[in-house]
Amino acid sequence: MPPSASGAPGAPPAPAEKHRIADVRVTPVAFRDLPLLNTVGVHEPFALRTVVEVVTDSGVHGLGESYGDLPHLRRLEEAGRHLVGLDVFDVNGLLRAVTASLADDSGEGGHGMGGMVMTSAAADRVVSPFEVAALDLQGKIVGRPVSDLLGGAVRDRVAYSAYLFYKWAGHPGQDEDEWGAALDPDGLVRQARRVVDAYGFTAIKLKGGVFAPDEEVEAIRALRAAFPRHPLRLDPNTAWTVATSIEVGRALDGVLEYLEDPTPGIGGMARVAREVSMPLATNMCVVAFDHLPPAVRAEAVQVVLSDHHFWGGLRRSQLLGGICRTFGMGLSMHSNSHLGISLAAMTHLAAATPNLDYACDTHWPWKDPADDVIVPGALTFRDGAVAVPAGPGLGVELDRDALARLHRQYVDCGIRERDDTGYMRRFEPAFDPACPRW
Amino acid sequence: MPPSASGAPGAPPAPAEKHRIADVRVTPVAFRDLPLLNTVGVHEPFALRTVVEVVTDSGVHGLGESYGDLPHLRRLEEAGRHLVGLDVFDVNGLLRAVTASLADDSGEGGHGMGGMVMTSAAADRVVSPFEVAALDLQGKIVGRPVSDLLGGAVRDRVAYSAYLFYKWAGHPGQDEDEWGAALDPDGLVRQARRVVDAYGFTAIKLKGGVFAPDEEVEAIRALRAAFPRHPLRLDPNTAWTVATSIEVGRALDGVLEYLEDPTPGIGGMARVAREVSMPLATNMCVVAFDHLPPAVRAEAVQVVLSDHHFWGGLRRSQLLGGICRTFGMGLSMHSNSHLGISLAAMTHLAAATPNLDYACDTHWPWKDPADDVIVPGALTFRDGAVAVPAGPGLGVELDRDALARLHRQYVDCGIRERDDTGYMRRFEPAFDPACPRW
Repeated sequence: MPPSASGAPGAPPAPAEKHRIADVRVTPVAFRDLPLLNTVGVHEPFALRTVVEVVTDSGVHGLGESYGDLPHLRRLEEAGRHLVGLDVFDVNGLLRAVTASLADDSGEGGHGMGGMVMTSAAADRVVSPFEVAALDLQGKIVGRPVSDLLGGAVRDRVAYSAYLFYKWAGHPGQDEDEWGAALDPDGLVRQARRVVDAYGFTAIKLKGGVFAPDEEVEAIRALRAAFPRHPLRLDPNTAWTVATSIEVGRALDGVLEYLEDPTPGIGGMARVAREVSMPLATNMCVVAFDHLPPAVRAEAVQVVLSDHHFWGGLRRSQLLGGICRTFGMGLSMHSNSHLGISLAAMTHLAAATPNLDYACDTHWPWKDPADDVIVPGALTFRDGAVAVPAGPGLGVELDRDALARLHRQYVDCGIRERDDTGYMRRFEPAFDPACPRW
Repeated sequence: MPPSASGAPGAPPAPAEKHRIADVRVTPVAFRDLPLLNTVGVHEPFALRTVVEVVTDSGVHGLGESYGDLPHLRRLEEAGRHLVGLDVFDVNGLLRAVTASLADDSGEGGHGMGGMVMTSAAADRVVSPFEVAALDLQGKIVGRPVSDLLGGAVRDRVAYSAYLFYKWAGHPGQDEDEWGAALDPDGLVRQARRVVDAYGFTAIKLKGGVFAPDEEVEAIRALRAAFPRHPLRLDPNTAWTVATSIEVGRALDGVLEYLEDPTPGIGGMARVAREVSMPLATNMCVVAFDHLPPAVRAEAVQVVLSDHHFWGGLRRSQLLGGICRTFGMGLSMHSNSHLGISLAAMTHLAAATPNLDYACDTHWPWKDPADDVIVPGALTFRDGAVAVPAGPGLGVELDRDALARLHRQYVDCGIRERDDTGYMRRFEPAFDPACPRW
C-alpha cells in the first residue's frame, strides 16, 4: 500500500509504479484433435494455437492464448515487438500499438476458424491475447483474480454446454478413437450421454450443417427425448437457405433454446428471425463492432455469441455484453478448439459479465487432458461448470515442459493453417463447402 | 506482490486479499453559487452536493461526489447501509446492492438537475458516487491512478470548455459579484474574455434558453466574432419548438460545433436533426441506457453528453462511450455545479475514454476556489485543460475542515432541493419554465 493510501490529508500522492513490458514470447503449439465434422469439412489430427507470454521489467509473467494460423502468428510476432515498453495497465495503449503494427497489413487470412468466419477485425483478433496477458499481469501484480479487474464475479461457477459433433470413428488411417463414430441420432445421443455423464453439462449444443436438415432435425428430436430437461442448440454454420432455415425453425418450434447461424448474412438472418419462434444466435454475421449497428437495425439476431479471441479481449467483450444488454439482445459465448489459458480467460469473463447467462460453449472435452500448456488442476468441471479461479490473475500457471512438447508437436505436424475443407477433400475429393447448400 | 506472482510453476495461487467496506459516510454540503440563468430559472445562492466516503476494514478511504437534493441524499444513505461488507473490487456487487436498496423506492425526485432532467435511472444515479469511491479505493490499494483502472490514459491532459451563462449582476439583495451582469451579447463576450483569459479554454459553450432565440443567435455571432477559432456550442435546454430549432440551426449553419438539446424528446430531436447541418447533442433526451435504442433507431442525436453522475459511474460511462463509438455517435461530457472530487473523476474518465474528444463541460470557474472539500492544488487548469492526476486513486485528498465548513453551510443555507424555478419566482412571480416556449 502506498504511503498516502490512508487518505491522510497533506501527504502528496506518490506517482504510480509502472510495470513495463520487457519481453513478449509468441509460441505456436499443436495439440491432438479428433475428426469432428462441420459444414466446411472435418477437424485435422492437430489443432493449432499460439501461446503468448508477456514479461514485465519487474519479472512478472502474463499469459494469453490465440489462434495458431500462420498469418495470425506472424501478426502476433510483429505486434509483440510493438508492445515492449508499454505499461501493463495501459490496455488502451495495447490496442493502439497493435493497430500501428498492422498498418501495412492487408488483414487477410488468419481468422483461425477454418473459413467459417472471415470478417472479424484484425486489430481485435491480434490484441486479444496480449490484453488477456496484461490482465493476467495486472492481477498478479495487485494480487487479484482477473474477474475482479473486470468488475467482480457475479457467479463463482461458470456453466458450459456439452458441444456435440458429428464425427468419424477415428482419423482415416488411425485406430478408432475413444469416442467412436457419431453419424446419426443414436450416435449423437451416445456421445451426449458420455459427455454429460463425465462433465455434468446442463445444456447441449449440436454442431450441424453436416447432414441434410431433416436428419439434423431428427437428431435434435432424439436428444430432446433422451435429455428432456437440457436446453438444446443447433448450429449449422450458415449451411441453409432462408427458406430451409424457416422450415427447420418451425419444425423445432418449442424444442430449441436458440438456433445458431442457420443462414448467411444479417439480411438472411433477419428474414428468418421474423418467421421462427426461437431466438437466433450468431457468431458469424456479427463478429466485430462494425456489424452491430446493421444487425440491430435489421433485428437480425437475438443472441450474440461473444468470443474474446476475436472481440478484442476481455474488456472489449464486456463492452459487447453491455451493448447486448442495452439493445435487448442475449449474450452467450462461442468456442474454438482451445487450451487451458483460454478456458481460464473465458471463465473470468463469463463470471464478471452479469448478462452472460447462457451456458458457454467449449471444445474442452474433445482435447486430450495430457495435451495442454498449463499446470493441471486449476480448472475442473463439476455439474457442467468451472469454478472461477480465485488466485491472482488468470489463476493458471504455464508448464514449460508441456509448452515445449506442444511446440514440438507444432513443428512436427506440419499444419500451418487450419484447413477443414482441404483435409476433408483428401477423403472426399468432390466435397464442396459452399453455404448455403440446403 | 503475492508469492506466486512470478508465475513459477507449482506455486499454488494464493486467494486474493479482500478489502471490504466497513463504513460509508454520506455528508451533504453546500457551496456558494452565482445567479446563473437557464430556461427553468436561476441558480440559488448555494448549490448542493453530497460527499461520499467509503472506508475499508483495512482503513483505506475512498471518495465520491453526487447531487445533494434531499430525496437523493436519503437514497445515498440507504444505499450506503447496503454496501457494508462488500469487497471494493466488486463493482458489479455495488450496483446489485444499490438496486436492492431501491426496491421500495418510487425513484421519483432527486435528479439534482433543477427539473431539467427527470428520466435518468435511479440505480445509476445512486451507485455512481460509490463506484467512484470504489475505484478511488482500488487505485489507492494497488498504487495506481483511476485512469489506469479504466484502461489507461490516452491523454495526459483533459480539455474543458468555457461554460458561459447569462447572469444577473449579483443575487438580489446582495452586492454585485466579481463577474457582474451578462444579459446581452456584449456581457457574454466580456464574460468569455474573462474566463478564457483566466483558464485558457479553447472551446466555448453558452447556456441558452433564457432569452428569445434571435437574441441568443446574436450572442453566438458576437462570440464568433470575438473568438474566431474557438468551437462554439449553444444549449437552450429544450426551450424551442422543432420549427424554431430548425430556424436557429439554419441561422447558425457553419458556426456551431454542436447544438445541444434545442427541443424536447427523441422524436423532436430527430425531426430537427434531419433539417440542420450541425450535430445535435443531448444530455436530456438520452440520459439512461434505455434511451439509447430509440435514439439510435430515430437517428435523433449525433453527440451524447456523458455524465458519470447519472450514467452509473465511470465504468458504465465507458460503456456509454463504447456504445457511442460503435453506433457512430460522438461523445462529450456534461456538467452540473460540482466540487473537486467530481472534477477529478471526470478527468480520469475523460483521460481513459479514447473517443471522448470534445472539450468537456465544467461549472468549475463559477465556484469560489475557497469552497471545496479537497486539499487544494491537485487540479489546476492550464491552456483550458486539467492534468490527469498521477497519484493513486482519484489523486485528491479530503480536507476534513473544509468538509465540516461546507456541511455547516448546508445546514445553515436551508436549501434541501435545487429549485431554480422557485428561486426565480421570488423575483418574477409569473415566470413559467414550460418547454418548449419559443
